[in-house]
Amino acid sequence: MLYLVRMDVHLPHDIPAPIAEEIKAREKAYSQDLQRQGKWQQLHRVVGEYANYSVFDVDSHDELHTLLSGLPLFPYMTMQVTPLARHPSSIR
Amino acid sequence: MLYLVRMDVHLPHDIPAPIAEEIKAREKAYSQDLQRQGKWQQLHRVVGEYANYSVFDVDSHDELHTLLSGLPLFPYMTMQVTPLARHPSSIR
Amino acid sequence: MLYLVRMDVHLPHDIPAPIAEEIKAREKAYSQDLQRQGKWQQLHRVVGEYANYSVFDVDSHDELHTLLSGLPLFPYMTMQVTPLARHPSSIR
Amino acid sequence: MLYLVRMDVHLPHDIPAPIAEEIKAREKAYSQDLQRQGKWQQLHRVVGEYANYSVFDVDSHDELHTLLSGLPLFPYMTMQVTPLARHPSSIR
Amino acid sequence: MLYLVRMDVHLPHDIPAPIAEEIKAREKAYSQDLQRQGKWQQLHRVVGEYANYSVFDVDSHDELHTLLSGLPLFPYMTMQVTPLARHPSSIR
Amino acid sequence: MLYLVRMDVHLPHDIPAPIAEEIKAREKAYSQDLQRQGKWQQLHRVVGEYANYSVFDVDSHDELHTLLSGLPLFPYMTMQVTPLARHPSSIR
Amino acid sequence: MLYLVRMDVHLPHDIPAPIAEEIKAREKAYSQDLQRQGKWQQLHRVVGEYANYSVFDVDSHDELHTLLSGLPLFPYMTMQVTPLARHPSSIR
Amino acid sequence: MLYLVRMDVHLPHDIPAPIAEEIKAREKAYSQDLQRQGKWQQLHRVVGEYANYSVFDVDSHDELHTLLSGLPLFPYMTMQVTPLARHPSSIR
Amino acid sequence: MLYLVRMDVHLPHDIPAPIAEEIKAREKAYSQDLQRQGKWQQLHRVVGEYANYSVFDVDSHDELHTLLSGLPLFPYMTMQVTPLARHPSSIR
Amino acid sequence: MLYLVRMDVHLPHDIPAPIAEEIKAREKAYSQDLQRQGKWQQLHRVVGEYANYSVFDVDSHDELHTLLSGLPLFPYMTMQVTPLARHPSSIR
Repeated sequence: MLYLVRMDVHLPHDIPAPIAEEIKAREKAYSQDLQRQGKWQQLHRVVGEYANYSVFDVDSHDELHTLLSGLPLFPYMTMQVTPLARHPSSIR
Repeated sequence: MLYLVRMDVHLPHDIPAPIAEEIKAREKAYSQDLQRQGKWQQLHRVVGEYANYSVFDVDSHDELHTLLSGLPLFPYMTMQVTPLARHPSSIR
Repeated sequence: MLYLVRMDVHLPHDIPAPIAEEIKAREKAYSQDLQRQGKWQQLHRVVGEYANYSVFDVDSHDELHTLLSGLPLFPYMTMQVTPLARHPSSIR
Repeated sequence: MLYLVRMDVHLPHDIPAPIAEEIKAREKAYSQDLQRQGKWQQLHRVVGEYANYSVFDVDSHDELHTLLSGLPLFPYMTMQVTPLARHPSSIR
Repeated sequence: MLYLVRMDVHLPHDIPAPIAEEIKAREKAYSQDLQRQGKWQQLHRVVGEYANYSVFDVDSHDELHTLLSGLPLFPYMTMQVTPLARHPSSIR
Repeated sequence: MLYLVRMDVHLPHDIPAPIAEEIKAREKAYSQDLQRQGKWQQLHRVVGEYANYSVFDVDSHDELHTLLSGLPLFPYMTMQVTPLARHPSSIR
Repeated sequence: MLYLVRMDVHLPHDIPAPIAEEIKAREKAYSQDLQRQGKWQQLHRVVGEYANYSVFDVDSHDELHTLLSGLPLFPYMTMQVTPLARHPSSIR
Repeated sequence: MLYLVRMDVHLPHDIPAPIAEEIKAREKAYSQDLQRQGKWQQLHRVVGEYANYSVFDVDSHDELHTLLSGLPLFPYMTMQVTPLARHPSSIR
Repeated sequence: MLYLVRMDVHLPHDIPAPIAEEIKAREKAYSQDLQRQGKWQQLHRVVGEYANYSVFDVDSHDELHTLLSGLPLFPYMTMQVTPLARHPSSIR
Repeated sequence: MLYLVRMDVHLPHDIPAPIAEEIKAREKAYSQDLQRQGKWQQLHRVVGEYANYSVFDVDSHDELHTLLSGLPLFPYMTMQVTPLARHPSSIR
């Protein structure tokens, strides 16, 4: 089942740079692991913003929330989740 | 180059049903032709809404606008276009 | 899987009363059938508005969209769909 | 009488972790006690957000405000309260 | 129990004047009857708008929705309902 | 002349508790004094929020602004002020 | 007492031109009469919009609402009314 | 003096096609005349929308409003006008 | 040329009182100087808010931006600037 | 390919002045370098705001994001990016 997720990152300016870098490094590894599993199907940068649009393919709402709330940057993000259904004109 | 496009359809209630059906049939053919060409890469229904999220892969803003404004339903749609860049954590 | 859905009805004022009544009667039957099946678990009126908050329990996004888009009042509604996950403090 | 309540939690990032954990533990106990009393009838996580949708069944506005403002996380929450009435199509 | 209600009236411009006047006359009678019963405690015009702020004192959400949805102008109104609780600094 | 005022309080989390309590105590005394004078006619808690809806009866905009800006909590509040006129259907 | 009023005009496109012209002519006369009386102190066009910002100087909310609701274009306008108080830095 | 103007066109669906075409032809001629005069310096289509962003270079607010309100499509447009000043980092 | 400007002040709570007072004193002097020059024609307090509506009469966008950005409170303000044109019904 | 970009700067008040000045100096140099290369075609101050409207001419979304995210002020900015296409009435 597919979900479109928009994530906006708001890192506080007073986080020490090494800590911020460490969080981002863990975020990248976490994200790439989910991409390799096929659960995080797409990951695109929104031009000009510290934000992304992603597509997830998971089995349930609970699985998606577990994945998203486990993101190292989760405490610093706002998210919008949109469930996607099959479109009758899609050729896939 | 990738663009995320959200399209919301607002067909007036007083359009005669046969005309509405004819427009939708042309829309479907037009959409599937672009999908087969690889320009309209993804097409998903937003659950509960007469709306879709799509991803286009085209060479320029002008090409995208030409494709979108040629949609048979274009006069009845509102659109939001978001340019997408490569994300540094994407494995693709 | 649970979804919270808010539905707002906007019936055009120039729909003849008998037609509006017939649509509403079909809507009621359709809704009560889904309630009896256990798919439309809750249905509440928003006080002072021609709107409701509902909870659906279905197997997939596709099933939910099929149910919602089949509502006789669907062409006259705007909807907001929110996927709900298990809350760690819930005792259920 | 039923109320739909959406709660969004905004814990400041500079709260020491042990204090945050202690507040959350008290929140959980408080919430589960109200659930067992039948006053907090439903509690669902909004997917991807530090937020919940809840349904309360209490006797009066005053009782609801007393319950909500007593939440250990109340100073860090924004809330939207919607009174719910019986829907004429509900089979309950 | 008290509720603050804001009502905005949007009468379509193509309603024949005699019909509009008849609806407004019934609205006035309906409103004054509820005021005399003590259920519609306050009724104020918002300056410069075809809108009002009202305070209702009723026993339940269901009673309020029944009163509001029975307004002759109800099909032409949008409403916002806010439940009000006792304020600890109020001297009443 | 009547004004509807909505006040939302946003006390910073790092204000020491004794100072916050002292401000709130002064706020309460200030508010009750104006209520006894008949200028602050109504004061209601918005359910679930650190906010109130109030009705003031004063002689001029200047008098209202003087009263409001003198509130001990004024630096921590956002306010919306709506002037109210007599409604032609009011029986008062 | 001063009020800032923003008025936006939304004339339906299907009003016959002679009727629209007649309404506008009455609006102009009505407006200029109030300007000459000193009650409508300022009247400015918002650049690029069928809208104006005005300042009224009247004795009460009721007087202002009577003036505004008497405008020939009132049924086709949306209005925002902001009460203005003396500013402590004003030299007037 | 420069102004950024965003124009959104909302042509009613029931305007006969020949009349719409005639209005658009006049709009194009009007626009190109102002471009040749150097007053309408830039004109860009917003991708996916029946809208444009334009830059005007005129001597006064009054001149701009006269130009904009003279557009054949003006009755069917909403506009946002933003005055632009010289930027200290601009090399022009 | 006239501009309507709304200014909202957001002084951080942790600015030491003497520094805040000094900024406000400079703001007042700066403002009154511009009022005496006839450039800051009107200055009104928005009732209940730490905000004002002002009218400026200057020769160009650049002059206005220079005046506004020179305000001692400018770093703590949000502003909305609306260019005003002559209204055809104005008697001035 | 052209993009309209609006940038709003939100420098935290507690950044030491020398550091803020150093960031701004680097921002200016960075911006002027891109202007000289023809990539940052226009740069205008929004009157009354710490914001600008800019037009970029680059080859791809990726190039634009690289340029924007390299701005020394990027961590303190919010941005809105709008892709611009050729307008059929433009004479250029």
